Amino acid sequence: MSDRHALASLIHPRSIAIIGASDDALRIGGRPIAYMRQQGYQGRLMPVNPKRSTIQGVPAYASVADLPETPDLAIVAVAAKLAPDVVEELGKRGTRVAIVFSAGFAEADAQGAALQDRMIAAARRYGLRLLGPNSLGVLNPRIGFYGSFTSVVESGFPKAGRVGIASQSGAYGSHILGLARDYGIGVSACVMSGNESDISLGDMVQAFVDDPDTDVIAVYSEGIRDGQRLLAALEAARLARKPVVMMKVGTSEVGSAAAQSHTASIAGNDAVTDAVLAEHGVVRARSTEHMLDVARLATRRIYPVHNSLGVITVSGGAGVIVSDAAELCGLPMPQMPAAAQRHLKELIPFCAPRNPVDCTAQFMNDLSIAGRFADAVVQEGGYQSILGFFTYTVGAASIADGLRAQLNAVRERHPDRLFVLCILASRERVQQYEDDGFSVYEDPARAVAAIEAMGRFGAAFARPAGQKTPSAPVSIPLPDATPSEATAKQILAQAGIAVAEERVCADARAAVAAAEQIGYPVVMKILSPDILHKSEIGGVLLDVANAQAVQAGHARLLERAATAAPDARIEGVLVARQLSGGVECILGTQRDPVFGPVAMFGLGGIFVEIMKDVVLRRCPFDIDTAEQMILSIKGAPLLQGARGKPPADVKALAIMLSRLSHFAHEAGPRLQSIDLNPVIALPAGQGAYAVDAVIELAADGDARADVARGPGPGTL
Amino acid sequence: MSDRHALASLIHPRSIAIIGASDDALRIGGRPIAYMRQQGYQGRLMPVNPKRSTIQGVPAYASVADLPETPDLAIVAVAAKLAPDVVEELGKRGTRVAIVFSAGFAEADAQGAALQDRMIAAARRYGLRLLGPNSLGVLNPRIGFYGSFTSVVESGFPKAGRVGIASQSGAYGSHILGLARDYGIGVSACVMSGNESDISLGDMVQAFVDDPDTDVIAVYSEGIRDGQRLLAALEAARLARKPVVMMKVGTSEVGSAAAQSHTASIAGNDAVTDAVLAEHGVVRARSTEHMLDVARLATRRIYPVHNSLGVITVSGGAGVIVSDAAELCGLPMPQMPAAAQRHLKELIPFCAPRNPVDCTAQFMNDLSIAGRFADAVVQEGGYQSILGFFTYTVGAASIADGLRAQLNAVRERHPDRLFVLCILASRERVQQYEDDGFSVYEDPARAVAAIEAMGRFGAAFARPAGQKTPSAPVSIPLPDATPSEATAKQILAQAGIAVAEERVCADARAAVAAAEQIGYPVVMKILSPDILHKSEIGGVLLDVANAQAVQAGHARLLERAATAAPDARIEGVLVARQLSGGVECILGTQRDPVFGPVAMFGLGGIFVEIMKDVVLRRCPFDIDTAEQMILSIKGAPLLQGARGKPPADVKALAIMLSRLSHFAHEAGPRLQSIDLNPVIALPAGQGAYAVDAVIELAADGDARADVARGPGPGTL
Repeated sequence: MSDRHALASLIHPRSIAIIGASDDALRIGGRPIAYMRQQGYQGRLMPVNPKRSTIQGVPAYASVADLPETPDLAIVAVAAKLAPDVVEELGKRGTRVAIVFSAGFAEADAQGAALQDRMIAAARRYGLRLLGPNSLGVLNPRIGFYGSFTSVVESGFPKAGRVGIASQSGAYGSHILGLARDYGIGVSACVMSGNESDISLGDMVQAFVDDPDTDVIAVYSEGIRDGQRLLAALEAARLARKPVVMMKVGTSEVGSAAAQSHTASIAGNDAVTDAVLAEHGVVRARSTEHMLDVARLATRRIYPVHNSLGVITVSGGAGVIVSDAAELCGLPMPQMPAAAQRHLKELIPFCAPRNPVDCTAQFMNDLSIAGRFADAVVQEGGYQSILGFFTYTVGAASIADGLRAQLNAVRERHPDRLFVLCILASRERVQQYEDDGFSVYEDPARAVAAIEAMGRFGAAFARPAGQKTPSAPVSIPLPDATPSEATAKQILAQAGIAVAEERVCADARAAVAAAEQIGYPVVMKILSPDILHKSEIGGVLLDVANAQAVQAGHARLLERAATAAPDARIEGVLVARQLSGGVECILGTQRDPVFGPVAMFGLGGIFVEIMKDVVLRRCPFDIDTAEQMILSIKGAPLLQGARGKPPADVKALAIMLSRLSHFAHEAGPRLQSIDLNPVIALPAGQGAYAVDAVIELAADGDARADVARGPGPGTL
Repeated sequence: MSDRHALASLIHPRSIAIIGASDDALRIGGRPIAYMRQQGYQGRLMPVNPKRSTIQGVPAYASVADLPETPDLAIVAVAAKLAPDVVEELGKRGTRVAIVFSAGFAEADAQGAALQDRMIAAARRYGLRLLGPNSLGVLNPRIGFYGSFTSVVESGFPKAGRVGIASQSGAYGSHILGLARDYGIGVSACVMSGNESDISLGDMVQAFVDDPDTDVIAVYSEGIRDGQRLLAALEAARLARKPVVMMKVGTSEVGSAAAQSHTASIAGNDAVTDAVLAEHGVVRARSTEHMLDVARLATRRIYPVHNSLGVITVSGGAGVIVSDAAELCGLPMPQMPAAAQRHLKELIPFCAPRNPVDCTAQFMNDLSIAGRFADAVVQEGGYQSILGFFTYTVGAASIADGLRAQLNAVRERHPDRLFVLCILASRERVQQYEDDGFSVYEDPARAVAAIEAMGRFGAAFARPAGQKTPSAPVSIPLPDATPSEATAKQILAQAGIAVAEERVCADARAAVAAAEQIGYPVVMKILSPDILHKSEIGGVLLDVANAQAVQAGHARLLERAATAAPDARIEGVLVARQLSGGVECILGTQRDPVFGPVAMFGLGGIFVEIMKDVVLRRCPFDIDTAEQMILSIKGAPLLQGARGKPPADVKALAIMLSRLSHFAHEAGPRLQSIDLNPVIALPAGQGAYAVDAVIELAADGDARADVARGPGPGTL
C-alpha cells in the first residue's frame, strides 16, 4: 500500500524538494522550477542549494536536512557521484519518492553501474521509491506539476485531460507528449522512466490504473524487463476498464537468451509480446499516430463489446476506403436491414443504402436528409460505432450550422454509441464538433483503425477476471539433466500427453519383438540423451516393414550413431508405431525470459519453418482456448477437412496443447523448452499423438540450458 | 496531337465559356466565376446566360453562337436534358474541350445513360473532348483557373506547386485537395473525372505527363476501365521521370467477370492491379496520408536508384522505430563503416555509431557535434537518403538557430541527397526548414515510408524503355470451343510447354500397351471435353502398377464417368507417366478484363489455395523475369532445397512460365484462362512437366467463356 502512495505522489505530489536547484531557468535544476511557477503549481516548492537563499524568487534551503517539512516528492538534479548521498538523506527524512534526473549511471559505464547500485540500495533501506536515474521526469498538467527538464514544453504546455502517458524513453516520451499537445489530447500525466533502477514500466502503468483522474493509458516501451509486474498492472487496468494502448518498438529485436530456442527462432520474440499483450486486452499500436488516435477516441469511454460499424457518407469513394480499412482490421460492417434500405430509397431513389450508406450530395439541398439518413443508420442499423464522412461540406458556409444541428440531434438521442466524423474544416469548427461529443479524424482509414480498437477494449473488458483454469497440480519431478527421448515421453505421458506407442529396445532381438507386438510398418530411432536431432545423423528409419528389416535397421542405426557422435551415450533403439493418414503438427513451449513459459502451435514442417504460420500464448490455458488457438492459424482449413481429407482430431490436439501449457507452467524455471515435433493428428475421434519429443532443462541453479542448440530443422 | 492540345487546354485554358452561368456565387453555375474572379484568372471569362447581360459583373452572352471568340474550354452547367445540344453547339464553334458539371446521366438511370450516349456522340462528331458528365471539374491554382463548384476551397485555396492530382471521385478528390492544402503541398492542377464518358483516368495521367509544370502525379482511382490507355500513360510518366503515386480503393472488390476464373479466385483482382502498377513503377498508396506523404517528398525530385537510409537521431528509441519501419518496407540501412564509427566514438564515447547513429543529448551542449555527426553519416556513410530525428529540440530557444545552421551546412555540401527531418516545432519553424530544402515529417514511420517510395521511383526510372521480349509470333490456331485435356496439352506443347508423357487410349488394350511403353507406375485419367475437374468425380487413378490394374482402372473410370456425367462425350482414357520426387506447382494465366492476360505462379495445392502464396504479372515477360517471379514467393525455399530435398529445376519452370505468358499474349481475347495444375518440377536438370492442363476459351464473338467454372479445387 505504501508503494501505491509513493506512486500516487510521483504523479500528484503535494510538496516538492529540488536538490541541485538552479537560478538559471535553462539548466536542468532550474527548468522544473521555472515551468512550475509559470504553470501555477499550488503545492510547496522547496529548492535546495547550499549557495543561495532564494532560487528564482523561491526561498531555498542549504540541505535536505534543513527542509522545513518532509517533501512528498524530491527531484534530484546533482552530479551523479553526489546522488547516492542525497538519496540517503531523502530516505532519512521519510521522503516517499524521488525523481533522479542525473545521468552517468548504468547507462554510461561499469563505474556508473556501481554508483547506481549504491543509490538504489540507499533508497531500499528507507523504502523510498525512485524514478530514474537518467530520467526526464514527470509532468502533470492538471496541477501544473512539471518535474521535468524536457524542452518540449517550450513550444507549449499540454492540455490537462484524462490520458496518462508512460514512456521508457525521455526523448521519445517528450515527442509523444508534444504530438498529444498538437493534436489537442488532454493529458493526466506523463511519466518517463529512464534507467528503471526501481520504478519500472509495470509500476508506471499501475500508477495510472490507481489514478482517479486517468481514463486511458498510453505506453511507449523499448524493452520489457518486469514481465510479471507489467502483466499484473495490465490485468488491473483491464479490470478497472482503463484501456491500454501500447507502442512496443524493436520488432526485429531478438533477445539473446531466447534466440537459442526453436520456437523463438520461428516466431521471433516479438510474436510472444504480441500474444501476451493481446491476451490482456492491450491494443498494440503500429505507430505513434496510431497510439494517439486510439488514445484520443478511448477518452469517450465507449467500448462496444460486439463492435460493428455503420457508415454514412457523402462520397462513394470514401465509403469504399472505409470498407477496405474495416475488412483489413476485421471490423464487421453488416448490411442495413432490408426495410431500412427501402425506406432510404424512398427518400433518395439514387442513394446507396446498404452500408456504407451514401446519402449523395442531395443533403446539401435539404439538410434534414443528412439527419434522417444518420438516424436510420443508428436506429435501424443498430451499429455500435458510427462513422460519418462529410469532408469539407461541414465548412461550406451555406450549410455548416444546419448540418451540425442535424448530426447533434441524432447523437443526443443515442448517447451509448461511438460517433466519429471524418471532416475537413477549420480548427475552430473541428473543436466545436469535438466539444459536442464527436471524435474527429481527417483520414478515414485512421478513423477506422481507432474505432476497431474500441471493440477490442470492449471485448477484453467483458471477459471475466482471470480465473486461470486451476490445473491439477502436476508435480512431476524433472530429471537432473536434459532427458533422452524416451524419458521425455514418459514425463509427458505423466502430464497426460498422448505419445505414439513405442518400446525402448536394448538389442535387435527386443526390437523385433516390439515391432511384432506393435504391428508393421514401424519407425525405428536411435535413443540417446546426447543426440537431440536424430534425423540430422540419419538416426530415424521409416517404413520398417518386417523382422528382417528391423534387424538390419538396428545395426544401421548403431553404426550411424557411432560415426556421427562417437561419444554419445546410447540407450538402445526406439521402435514405434508408424502413424499414417494424419496431419503433421508441431506443439511446443519455450521459456520467454520476460513472460515465462509460452506455448506454440503450428502445422508441421514447411508451414512452421517457411510460412511462419504459428500461434503463441502464455501458459497455462484451458482446452477451449487451445482450440481457438489451433483454429486461428492460417492453415487451419487443413485440419478441418480441406481438399477432400477427413477432418483431423482438433479436440485431441486442443487437449494436448492445454495439458502441455499446464505442464510447462507447473514445471518451473528449469524447463527451457519442449518440442513435440511432429505430432500426428489422426482423423476426428482417433486422437493425436506426439511422435518425437525433446525436453530441454537448465541445470539446477543455472539459468542457461545445459545443452546448446542451434535453430536447425527440428523434425524427427 | 489534337488530343494532347485538348488535354493541355483542360488544365490550362486561355479562355473559358460557362454555359448556364449564374449570378448567384453559391450555385453550380456561379461558383466557378466567383472563384476565378477571386483568384485573379487572367484569361477571358465568357458567361452564357440568355436572361442577363452581365453575370457577377462580367459581360454575358445569350448563347454559344453569340460568343465573341471560340472558347479554349467550356464549362457546361445546364440541366442534363439540355446538355447534348449545348455540346453540339460547342462542337460547332470548334471548342476543344468541355467540362460537364451536370448530373442525371449514366450514374442515374437508363434514360440518363441514353442522354449521355447522345451527348458523347455529339462531342465525337466535332472532335470535342469531354470531362464528365457529373464531374466536379478542374482546378489550377497556378493561373487561378477554378473550373469547379467544389466547396472545399471555401476554407482556403490550395497553394500553386508541382503536384498534379487526378481523381475519379469529385468528393474524395476535393478531400485530397483540401488535405494537400492543409499540408502545404503545392498543386499544379486537380482534375476530377466524374462519369468518364470520354476523358478517362489514363487521359488525366497523360495530361500531367505532358504538363511542363507538373513534376509529380497523385492519382485516386475507384475503378480502372481504360487499362491499356492508363498503362501507356504510366509508361510515359516513367520515361519522363515523373513519379506516380496512386491510391486504388476497393481492395476487396472482385470484378464479376474475373471472379469466375480460378486465378482471380485465388489472388483476387486487387493482386493483379498491384502487380501491374508495380511493373510500371507506380507506388501504390496505402492511405490518403501515405499518398500525400510520398507526393510531397517526390517534389524534391531526388530518386535514388539504389536507395539506402542513414539515420542520425537524438533518441535511441526513435532510432529503433525507424529501423523497424525500414525493415518492414525493405529499405536497407547498412552499418556505418568501421573507421567512421571509431571516429564518432572519439567525439562522444557513449554514442551509438552504427546506424541509426545516436549522437545523444550531448549535441545540446555543443552544436558542432550535430553537424559533425550529420556530416559523418552523409559523407562517410554514403547513404542516399538521410533521416534526422531531432524532435522538439529544434524548437528549444537556446539552440534553435545554431542547430539549423549546422544541418544546412551539411545539406548544402550534398545537394544530391534526400534530407528528411523528423521534428516537432511551430508552423513557421517547420516552414523555414522546408524552404531550406529539408522535407519535414512528424512521425518517423511515415517519413520512412515516403523515403522508401523514392527508391522505388529511382529503380523504376533506371529501367530502360519497355523493350518487351519480341516473342516469336506464336500463331497456334485455337479450336472453336474449350478443348479436352489432351488437345489442350497438344496446343501447349506447340507453344513449347513441356507436358508429362502420356497417351490417349481408346480402349483397355491400348491403355495397357501405353502403360507398358511409358513404364509403371502410371496415372490414368478419364478424357472428356465435358469433364473439367476430373478429380471431383473420381476420374483420376494414381499408382497404377501393372497391366491387370490398368485394365481394371479403365473399366472403373468409364463407370464413374457414366454415373457422374452421363451426357459427357468420352474420348477415351489418358495414360501418363507418374512423376515423383518433384515439387508440385501451379502455373496459369487469366484474362483480366482491364489489363488483359496475367500469368500466375505458385506452389501446388495448399500453398496456393490456403496460403495464397502466389505471384502475378501481366503477359508477356522473359525468362529472367519469370525466374525472379518464381523466387519471389514466400515458399521459394521449397524450390531451392529446403529441408534436405534436392533443389528443383527452377530454370525449367521459368522457361515454362515465360512461354506460357507469350502464348497467352499472342492467343488474343478468346483465351479466357489456362490452368496447369499441377506442374511437377523435378530436381534441377530434370525438367518441369505439366501433368494436367485446362484451357478455357470464349466462343467466337462471345466475350464470356463458353464453359461455366466454379472456383473449386483445381488439382488433377
